[in-house]
This record gives sequence, C-alpha cells and structure tokens, in this order.
Amino acid sequence: MSAPFEELAQQLAEVGRHCYERGWALGTSGNFSAVVDTAPLTLAITTSGVDKGVLESSDIVGIDERQRVVRGSGQPSAEATLHLAIVRARDAGAVLHTHSIWSTILSEAATDGALTIEGYEMLKGLGGVATHEHCEQLPVIENTQDWIAAAPQIESLLREHPRSHGFLIRRHGLYTWGENLAAAKWQIEILEFLFEVMGRKRGMIWQP
Amino acid sequence: MSAPFEELAQQLAEVGRHCYERGWALGTSGNFSAVVDTAPLTLAITTSGVDKGVLESSDIVGIDERQRVVRGSGQPSAEATLHLAIVRARDAGAVLHTHSIWSTILSEAATDGALTIEGYEMLKGLGGVATHEHCEQLPVIENTQDWIAAAPQIESLLREHPRSHGFLIRRHGLYTWGENLAAAKWQIEILEFLFEVMGRKRGMIWQP
Amino acid sequence: MSAPFEELAQQLAEVGRHCYERGWALGTSGNFSAVVDTAPLTLAITTSGVDKGVLESSDIVGIDERQRVVRGSGQPSAEATLHLAIVRARDAGAVLHTHSIWSTILSEAATDGALTIEGYEMLKGLGGVATHEHCEQLPVIENTQDWIAAAPQIESLLREHPRSHGFLIRRHGLYTWGENLAAAKWQIEILEFLFEVMGRKRGMIWQP
Amino acid sequence: MSAPFEELAQQLAEVGRHCYERGWALGTSGNFSAVVDTAPLTLAITTSGVDKGVLESSDIVGIDERQRVVRGSGQPSAEATLHLAIVRARDAGAVLHTHSIWSTILSEAATDGALTIEGYEMLKGLGGVATHEHCEQLPVIENTQDWIAAAPQIESLLREHPRSHGFLIRRHGLYTWGENLAAAKWQIEILEFLFEVMGRKRGMIWQP
Repeated sequence: MSAPFEELAQQLAEVGRHCYERGWALGTSGNFSAVVDTAPLTLAITTSGVDKGVLESSDIVGIDERQRVVRGSGQPSAEATLHLAIVRARDAGAVLHTHSIWSTILSEAATDGALTIEGYEMLKGLGGVATHEHCEQLPVIENTQDWIAAAPQIESLLREHPRSHGFLIRRHGLYTWGENLAAAKWQIEILEFLFEVMGRKRGMIWQP
Repeated sequence: MSAPFEELAQQLAEVGRHCYERGWALGTSGNFSAVVDTAPLTLAITTSGVDKGVLESSDIVGIDERQRVVRGSGQPSAEATLHLAIVRARDAGAVLHTHSIWSTILSEAATDGALTIEGYEMLKGLGGVATHEHCEQLPVIENTQDWIAAAPQIESLLREHPRSHGFLIRRHGLYTWGENLAAAKWQIEILEFLFEVMGRKRGMIWQP
Repeated sequence: MSAPFEELAQQLAEVGRHCYERGWALGTSGNFSAVVDTAPLTLAITTSGVDKGVLESSDIVGIDERQRVVRGSGQPSAEATLHLAIVRARDAGAVLHTHSIWSTILSEAATDGALTIEGYEMLKGLGGVATHEHCEQLPVIENTQDWIAAAPQIESLLREHPRSHGFLIRRHGLYTWGENLAAAKWQIEILEFLFEVMGRKRGMIWQP
Repeated sequence: MSAPFEELAQQLAEVGRHCYERGWALGTSGNFSAVVDTAPLTLAITTSGVDKGVLESSDIVGIDERQRVVRGSGQPSAEATLHLAIVRARDAGAVLHTHSIWSTILSEAATDGALTIEGYEMLKGLGGVATHEHCEQLPVIENTQDWIAAAPQIESLLREHPRSHGFLIRRHGLYTWGENLAAAKWQIEILEFLFEVMGRKRGMIWQP
C-alpha cells in the first residue's frame, strides 16, 4: 500500500482536477488524500483553500497520524481528521471528499439517517460488490465545523456500518474511499451516477 | 466487414473514451466490440474492469466464437456472450453497451416490456429509418449476473424484435449495434438524445 | 456579404464541431450554411450524413440557387431547400439548423403555432433587439420529409413572421440565421439558453 | 490591489472563457472587470459585444472613474456603471457578471426582493464566511436598459445589504465580486452551485 510521495501527489492533483471538471469540487471545495506509508502512517493530502481546477502536486503535503506536516509545505485540509479516521477504520489506500449537486440534495432529503441505493447494475462498481442485487446504505451525518470534536462520532459511524462504501454529510457532500486512488475515483463516479439517477427520478411526475 | 485488429482496437478505444466523456461509461462500466473477421468470427472487445476514460488499444483483445482470446491478452468483458449473440443475430459490425442516467431511469419505468419512441426527427439517425414517423420499440429485459444462462433469452428477444435497433437491461443500460463502429456510435448518440427528451418530458408538470 | 469559399467552409466546420460538443448536432444531425456570393447566389453548405463531431471543410460543398454543386464534391444536405428559402427571405449571411433536447421538447408542447419568449435580458443577443422587453415569437411548423413540397409553406411562414429570429420544426429542431456566421452562432446560443430556461421552469412544482 | 494592466487583461480573458465554457456567458453576454489602480481608480473591463468563448486580452480596455478609455481601444461594457459602483461600495478588486440558467430562473421566482440561501457547507466558499450556518441574502432588483439612471438605486441597495456577496437582476443574471479575480471566480462557482441545488430541489415532487 506504500508508494512514492511525489507520484501520489501527482495522481491526487489529477484526480482533483478531474473532480473539478465534473463539477464536484467547485470554488476551493473538496479534499483528497492517499496513503504514502502505513508504518508509521503517512498521508498525502490536499492543502486548504486551493482551486482544484488548477491543482498541482505542490499543493499536496505529507502528514503523520497527528496531522503534522512531514513532506512539502502548507496547511493540510481542515478535514484531515476525517481522512485519518477513515484510513484507520477501513484500511483504505485513498480517501476522496467531494461536494456535488446531487449528493447535497439527497443528503438534505434523507430522513432516517441513511441513503439507501438498491438494485442497480452500477452498484457492481463498488469494491467487493458482485451483483446488482446489492443494497448500499450510505449513512448521513449532520454537518459541523469542528471535526476534531466529531471524530469519535465518525469512528462509531464507520464501525456501525462496516459494509458501507461511503457516507454523506448533510448539505455538504460525500466521503468515499478505496484500496487505492483508482478504486476510490471509480467509486465517486459510481456513487455520483447513482445519486443523479435517484435525484432525477424523484423529480418526475410519473415516479418510476 | 473485416478490418485489421489493431485499427479496430484503436477505434474502439476512442469510442470508449468518448462514451466516458459523455457520462455513459463511468467507473469501469460499459463494454464495446467490433467484428475483425467473419469466417471464422473474430471479435475485438474491451477487457474487464478497465477505466474507459483512459482506454487504450492494449485494453482490447481479440476473441473467437467460444470467447477464447486469440489476440492480445486480458480477460474479455463478462458480457462477451451478449456481444456474440448480437453479432450473429443482427449481422452487426460493432456492438456498444453503455450505462447512462436516462437509460437507467427509463428502463426502470418501462412496465410493458418495451420502451416505445415515436414521431421524432432524430429517429432518422437509426440505421434504415427514413422518416420521423418511425415507431421504435426497444425491448426491456431483466438484469442478471449470468449472461451465459440468459443467452437463449437474448437470442429469442432478438428474433422476436427483428426491427429493434437496441435493447435495454432493466436498471442497467443500453445495447445497440451497427454495420460498423461509426454507425453504432451514431445510434448511441441518437438513442441517448431521445432517452433524455423522454425522461425530461416525464419530469414536467405540463406534460407536453 | 461575399467571402472566400475555403474560409467559410473552415468556419462552418468549426461551428458544426462546436454545436456537436454542446449536444445540438448528435449522430449525423444538423446542417449549416453560409453565403459565399450573392450574384449569382452561392451557398457553402454541409453535406449529408456527416458526423459533426469531426466535421472538416472538405465536408462542405458550394451550391447554386438550384442546389447544383459548384464547389467541392458530395451530396448537399437534404434540407438545402430550407437554407436557400431563408437566405432569400431574410437576406441572411448564414443559416444554422440544430437538434437540441430543449427545442425538441418545447416544439412538441407548443399548441398555438408559436413559442413565445418574453422579458429576458438574453433576448438582447438576438439581431436588432435592444431591450429585454422584447417579445420573440418563434413559429412552430409540422415536420415533413419532403421539404421541396413544403417550400411554399416555409416562404409564407417567413413572410408572415417578418420579425422572428428563427423557427421550430415540431419534434425536430431549430432554424436560425444571422448576417454572418458569428451572429448566427450567437443566436443559437441565446435561443438554446432561453429554451433551457423555459423548459426547466415548466418542470418545476412552484412554477415561477 | 494594483496590478499591471496587461496581466489583469489576460486573467480577465481567461475567466471570461471559463464562464463561457460553463454556459454562464453565452452569445456575447456577461462582462468582467478588475481594478488596475485605486488612485486614481482605473478598471480593466471587457468591451461590448465580444464572444466570451474566444475572449482575448485585446478585448479588454482600461477605464477611469468617468468611464473614459485610458488603456487599449474599444467600447467598454454598457454596464461599466455597475462595476464602478460595486468597486466603490465594496472595495472590490474584481467584479464578475454572468448570465446563467439557474440565476435567471431563481431571480424570476424571488417575490420578496431577495434570494435566501442558508445551511449549506458551500456557503463557506464566500469571502469571510466560516460556517455552513451562514444565511446569505442576495437582493433581486428589476432589470433596466438605463444603468446610469439606475446607479443611485444600485448604490443604496449595496448600502442596505452590507453583508451580501452578490445581487441578482431579475431575468438577467448575477453580479458578484471579490478582493481579487480568483476570489471573485470562486464566488461565482459557489453561488452557481447553490443556485443549481435550489433550482433542482424546487423541481422535485418530494420536496426535501
């Protein structure tokens, strides 16, 4: 799961620009990370306040488990706490966080603590899913500006939903992850596709 | 109908990247094929699990009628059975399978086994159609993970709808084909256009 | 109003690729023309059945008033009759015909023979319009496959609506024109923008 | 806040082409400015009637506080009065004006003189906003073709809403600004994102 920092930083920059192009990381929103080393844990992560449309590898820093910068320079994303919690809980190689139109709308609408997606072929794009008969439950948690205080809540959420491939923060966006950056990027595309299907269906008179 | 494998592989890669750009083959979804030779039948087809956004000709293999790899290396798409059945039944030169938002939504809504599209000028973009007064019926079949077992069902569906230019798999996507890759690509664009028209109309209060 | 054929052919190819990119000329749909000379009238026009995504100047021919090819080679668009009628009636330097999602939907919904658009700032982008208080009426005519027979109907329609900046063919698409190619391209963008505004508004529950 | 004219002109051209690509400045719509110098005030601003898809630095002129051209040549945008009023009232370094689908629709729907957006994480992308609990109120004013006569109204609107990050002109578009061009561009992306969220929500049956 380890890889040279510089290589991961370039791949993260590419994924970031891709997400910007798709409209999932507008303004300076979104943050992206990948595991450089596991012992001790080192994470390559985007710095704060950067335009993802022109993201460069120099906008990525390496941090340790206590969020201290160990490679490059800059302020790591304010949501680094979430990235580290996910890496630990899921043994992930990459964590991606996006702000999309449909994830925002669906997260706002979810009333029972989770968004359920079931019966679509595209679900097979999620890690380890082999049939469209899969039922994906994405937990929806409330938004906050203090993720350090909310870290225990995130950790218990990840424990309580061991099979979920991501979670939504209400009126905020999506977190998803994968064994490596490519797998995490595919999961964003899959989940955003399914969000759009569900969002558009709900807008329809004849309700399929 | 025969063409050099390498040339077709490059054209398939181009069509695949195009479909990815349009949002019809996100994650690693979608698969694409073209006939290399008819006697014996050889099909150039995308390998399994490849990101269509960066599809290269090296991601294409040649297979024979029994799905054995005869050119290049890699695992042919799990849906190669469908491609071969379509080529045989329709004398097609190329088969394209995409996963789009609107085909997913409309396939879910179809209750009588087919999606009917009628009266649009764009229908003239389908092979052999010369007037907007054409009535296109796209059969909708249930999804499965065992296409080898479902092959007879597909073959009888193609026989029962000899004039259809494609079919939908429920909550999964579209199969269409053409005498060559260019014709098949045009048909995807035409059908996706018409799906969007029909999907958007159904979302409207005033229902045109 | 006259310009070198080769220069206009290149500009037409560029406009065609642009319309394809925007989704207004998918498959092989759409056709585009510009006046090369007025005495005698010579029109540069796209040939039939060409993929607009890869349109080149060699896909453009010059025709005279009787649709005989006088420059280049190929079959002029089957709708050349319409282009010539518009050039004569409106003294246009360029005529563009597109097939878009929203023009298709709105043309289908229009029940009183015209689509009316009123009160938007974007209307000022239409030739000669200086205020958002403009009321644009785009006639909607029925589709046909015999435009030579329908030519008199088109000519009377253009006479009866001397101030219209375009017209719609039902379930088919938009015709618009301008004093030159740039002006015609702007009008397509303006009209498509307004079609989308109107189409989306009609899909809304709260109906602004 | 001062910068070389030529550098700002190139950045303005880039922002303009970007807005065109996103569909926020179609036809020849939209206008963009940045402060070159503050004493005396000099503004780099787009000239009138230019296609933003091919905007070049030569399409930008420098004007003084009385809208006289002091750099380059061409007719400054007819809405230069608004740009100058905003720069004075808000101490802005850049002012951007776009025409988008969603801002047009939402401006039309606003009945109480303002569009209110509240509770979204993306609001943090607006200058000085540090929490999603922010309540943004964008005033909506009526459209006119005489901005010189309307200047006092704009100035009082800016005084009465000292915390607003932009305003809407009904059925016309958005004005927003920032301390520099990058900040203003981010604000457009943030506001357009939120407009789309709100517009799409209103189109939904189940109304989240």
